[in-house]
Amino acid sequence: MEFQINKEFIAYVSKLFAENNTKQVINIFKDVHHADLAELFNEIEPELAVSIIKILDTDKTSDAIVELDEDVREDILKGLSSEEIAKEVDELDSDDAADVISELSEEQKEEVISKIEDVEHAKDIVDLLRYDEDTAGGLMGKELVKVRESWTNMQSIKEMRLQATEVERVYTIYVVDNNDVLKGRLSLKSLLTTSTKALVNEVYSTSITSVKVDDKAEDVAKVMQKYDLVVVAVVDEMNRLVGQITIDDIVDVIIDEAKEDYQMAAGITDDVEADDSILELTKARLPWLILGLFGGLGAAAIMGSFEDTLSRFPILFFFTPLIAAMAGNVGVQSSAIIVQGLANDNIKGSLWDRLIKEVSLSLINGLVLGCLVLAYGFVQDFQILTSLTIAISLVIVIIIAALIGTFVPIILHKRGIDPALATGPFITTSNDIFGIFIYFMIAKIILPI
Amino acid sequence: MEFQINKEFIAYVSKLFAENNTKQVINIFKDVHHADLAELFNEIEPELAVSIIKILDTDKTSDAIVELDEDVREDILKGLSSEEIAKEVDELDSDDAADVISELSEEQKEEVISKIEDVEHAKDIVDLLRYDEDTAGGLMGKELVKVRESWTNMQSIKEMRLQATEVERVYTIYVVDNNDVLKGRLSLKSLLTTSTKALVNEVYSTSITSVKVDDKAEDVAKVMQKYDLVVVAVVDEMNRLVGQITIDDIVDVIIDEAKEDYQMAAGITDDVEADDSILELTKARLPWLILGLFGGLGAAAIMGSFEDTLSRFPILFFFTPLIAAMAGNVGVQSSAIIVQGLANDNIKGSLWDRLIKEVSLSLINGLVLGCLVLAYGFVQDFQILTSLTIAISLVIVIIIAALIGTFVPIILHKRGIDPALATGPFITTSNDIFGIFIYFMIAKIILPI
Repeated sequence: MEFQINKEFIAYVSKLFAENNTKQVINIFKDVHHADLAELFNEIEPELAVSIIKILDTDKTSDAIVELDEDVREDILKGLSSEEIAKEVDELDSDDAADVISELSEEQKEEVISKIEDVEHAKDIVDLLRYDEDTAGGLMGKELVKVRESWTNMQSIKEMRLQATEVERVYTIYVVDNNDVLKGRLSLKSLLTTSTKALVNEVYSTSITSVKVDDKAEDVAKVMQKYDLVVVAVVDEMNRLVGQITIDDIVDVIIDEAKEDYQMAAGITDDVEADDSILELTKARLPWLILGLFGGLGAAAIMGSFEDTLSRFPILFFFTPLIAAMAGNVGVQSSAIIVQGLANDNIKGSLWDRLIKEVSLSLINGLVLGCLVLAYGFVQDFQILTSLTIAISLVIVIIIAALIGTFVPIILHKRGIDPALATGPFITTSNDIFGIFIYFMIAKIILPI
Repeated sequence: MEFQINKEFIAYVSKLFAENNTKQVINIFKDVHHADLAELFNEIEPELAVSIIKILDTDKTSDAIVELDEDVREDILKGLSSEEIAKEVDELDSDDAADVISELSEEQKEEVISKIEDVEHAKDIVDLLRYDEDTAGGLMGKELVKVRESWTNMQSIKEMRLQATEVERVYTIYVVDNNDVLKGRLSLKSLLTTSTKALVNEVYSTSITSVKVDDKAEDVAKVMQKYDLVVVAVVDEMNRLVGQITIDDIVDVIIDEAKEDYQMAAGITDDVEADDSILELTKARLPWLILGLFGGLGAAAIMGSFEDTLSRFPILFFFTPLIAAMAGNVGVQSSAIIVQGLANDNIKGSLWDRLIKEVSLSLINGLVLGCLVLAYGFVQDFQILTSLTIAISLVIVIIIAALIGTFVPIILHKRGIDPALATGPFITTSNDIFGIFIYFMIAKIILPI
C-alpha cells in the first residue's frame, strides 16, 4: 500500500498495529519524507501517531515532530516518556530542540534535558532556552562550521571534517580568531580554487553580514531579505560568533507576520485557522464584532440626536449605509497602504507631504464619486439640495476617512504599537461613526431646517 | 563623508559630479553593499544614478540594478546604452539577467543580447526568456555545479573548481548521469569525509527534491517551504537537470502573494505602494470605491422599497448602519479565514461539515451580540418588538454573512478564480445589501405593520 494520506491508508495502518505487524509499518514509512510524515500526524489521532513514532527511527520522527502544528505536537508529546522525548531531541539541531523543549512544562523540561545523552548538545539547548523566541538568539542554531584565520586550507579541511559530522548542512564556513571573534567567511569556492597550503588568513573574505543576538526577529528578516542571505551569523556583544540563523526559519517569521497583518485587517485576533475549534474561532472573532456592535449603537445614538433633521428629510436615512460604507472602505485602503509601507520602511517624506498627498488623492476619488451621486440624484429626481448634501458629505467624509486611515497607523507606529491594529474593524467602526456624524452636520448646514 | 542616505549625502555626491571629481565618488562607494546602493538609487534622480553607474564597477552596479524598484530601473536603463546594459547583464546570474532584459523593448532586447560578450551566458539568457515568469523556468538560474556519477571524488573536485568560477555561491553539488539526467546530490560533508579516490556513485545521496520546469511558482514555493529547502533542482520532461531555484527568489514570490492577498482584502488592486504617484494610487483604489458606491445606492433603493415600514417605525432607520457593518465584518472574517486556508491547502472535510461549523460559530456570535442589543434596548426603553426585530435580524444576518463569506471564496477557488477577490469590498458591499434587505424583511414579519 502506497503512502497517500487518506482514510483507507489511515485505516490500513491502524489495522497493522492491531495485528502487531510493526515490521510492515516500518516498511511503509521507509522512504517517506519527514515533512510528509508530519502532515500525516497532523491528520490522525495522537495515539496512532505516538505508536508510529515509537517504532520508527528517531532520525526521521524527530524532524517530523518539529514540523507539527503546535497543538498536535503538545498532544503527541504527552504520549511519550521524558526518555523518549530526550531521544527525539537528541537527533535535532539545537534550535529545533530548544523550540520543542520550550513547549514542555518546567518540570518535564528539566527531566528531558537531564536525559539527553550528548552533553554538549544539552548545553547548547539550555543556552538557547535563555533567549526570547522573537530575537535572533531565539531563532539561531548552535551547529556551524568554523575555522581559525591562522590555519592552512589543509588544516581547515581536516577540522571541518570533524565539525561537519555534527552539522546537517554546511551553508558557510565561518572564519574566527583565537577568541572566537567573527572575522569573515571562507567560501567553498576559494577553498576549492586555492592551494591546500595557503593560510585561511590569505584567502578568506571579510565581507560577512552578522546580526546581534538580541536583535529582533523581524529586523533579522529585513536584513536577510535586503541582502538576499541564506544564512546569517549571530554574534554577541563582543562580536564573538555564537550561532547562525538559516533562511527557512526566517521564511516562517515572514509568513507569520504577513498572516498576522492580514488577520488583523480582517478583524481576527490570535493565530487561528479554518480547522480550529469553534471555541478558538469565537475567541478570535467575537471581540471585534462586539467592537463593531458598539460602533453601530454609537451611530444609532448619533442619528437619534439628529431626529429633527431626519424627520423633515427622511430620504437622508436611505444614504447613511452608503456614507458609512464609503468611510470604512476609504479608511481601510489608506491604512493598508500605510501599514505595508511602515512594514517595509517605505514611508518617506514629511508628514506634511503625506497630508497633502492623501488630501489630493481623496479629493480626486471624492469628486468622481460625488459626481456619480449627483447623476444618480438627477435620474431619481431628488431635490437638488438633497443630492448636494449627499455628494458634499461624501467628499468630506472620504477626505477625513483617508486622513484617519493614514495618520492613526503612523501615530501608533511612532508610539511603538503595531500599526496593523488600526486596520480592519477598528478603522471601519470609527470611520462609520465619524462619517455619519459629518453627514448629518452637513445636512443641517445645507438643508433648510 | 560617510555613506548614509540623506539630503546632505545626495547633495555632496551631486557636487562631486559637478566638480568632475569621479575619483572621490568611486572612493565613497568602495565598500558600499549593492543592496544599499540600490536603496540610494531608489531615492535619487535617475540621471544621478546613471552617472554613478557609469563610473562604478559593473560588478557592484549590476547587482544593485537587479534590486531596484521596477519603475526606477526602467528610468535608469533609459539612460544607459545597449552596450552599457549588456556589460551590466554580463555580470549577472542568468535568472537576474533574464529578468532585467525581459523588461526592455523587443528591439532593445535583441540589441543588448547581441552585445553580451560571454556567448554561453547569452544562450542561457535567451533560453530563460522563453519561460513564463510565474513558472519554475521563469525563476530558475542556469548556473550550478554538477558532477557525473561515474567520476571519482578527486575528479569531481577538479571539475567543480572550473565550474565554481562561474557560480556565485555553491548550494548543492548535483549528480547527473551521462545524459544530464538528475540522479541525486553530493553533500559537501561526504566530499569532505570520504576518500578522494571514492567514486561519486558510491557516496552520493539519491534523496533530492526537484520541480518540473513548467510548475507554477506558487507550487514551487509550497514545496520549498514544506521541505525547508534552500535550493531546488529544476528538471525538464525527461528529468534532465536544467537549472536551480534558490530560496531568495522564492521569498520574493511568497511576500508578493501575501501582499497581494492583503491588498485585495483592503480593496486595492495592482501592486501599489505609499510612495507611488497619485494617479497610480487612484487607479488602484477608485474602482473598489465605485463598487462600494453602487452597493450603497443599492442599499438606498432597498430601503426606499420598505418606505411604509420605515415611516411607521422610524427607529429602525437608526440601526441600518449597525446591521450593515456587522454583516460586512462577519463576511470579512469568514472570507479571510477561508482564503488563508485555501492558500495553505488547509481546508479539509466536506462542504457539509464546513456549513455546520460556520452556522454554529455564527449562531454563537450572533446570540451573544443579539443579547447585547436586547440589553441596550431595555436600557434605552425601546418597545420590546423593536428590540426583538433588531436582535433577531442581527443573528440571521450574521449567519448569512458568514455563509456568504465562507462559500463565495470556496466557489471561486473551485472555478480557478483567485478566492482573495472575494475578500474586502466585494464581500462587504454585497453583505451590506443582503444585510439591510434581510433586516427589513424581518421587520415586516415581526412588527405590526
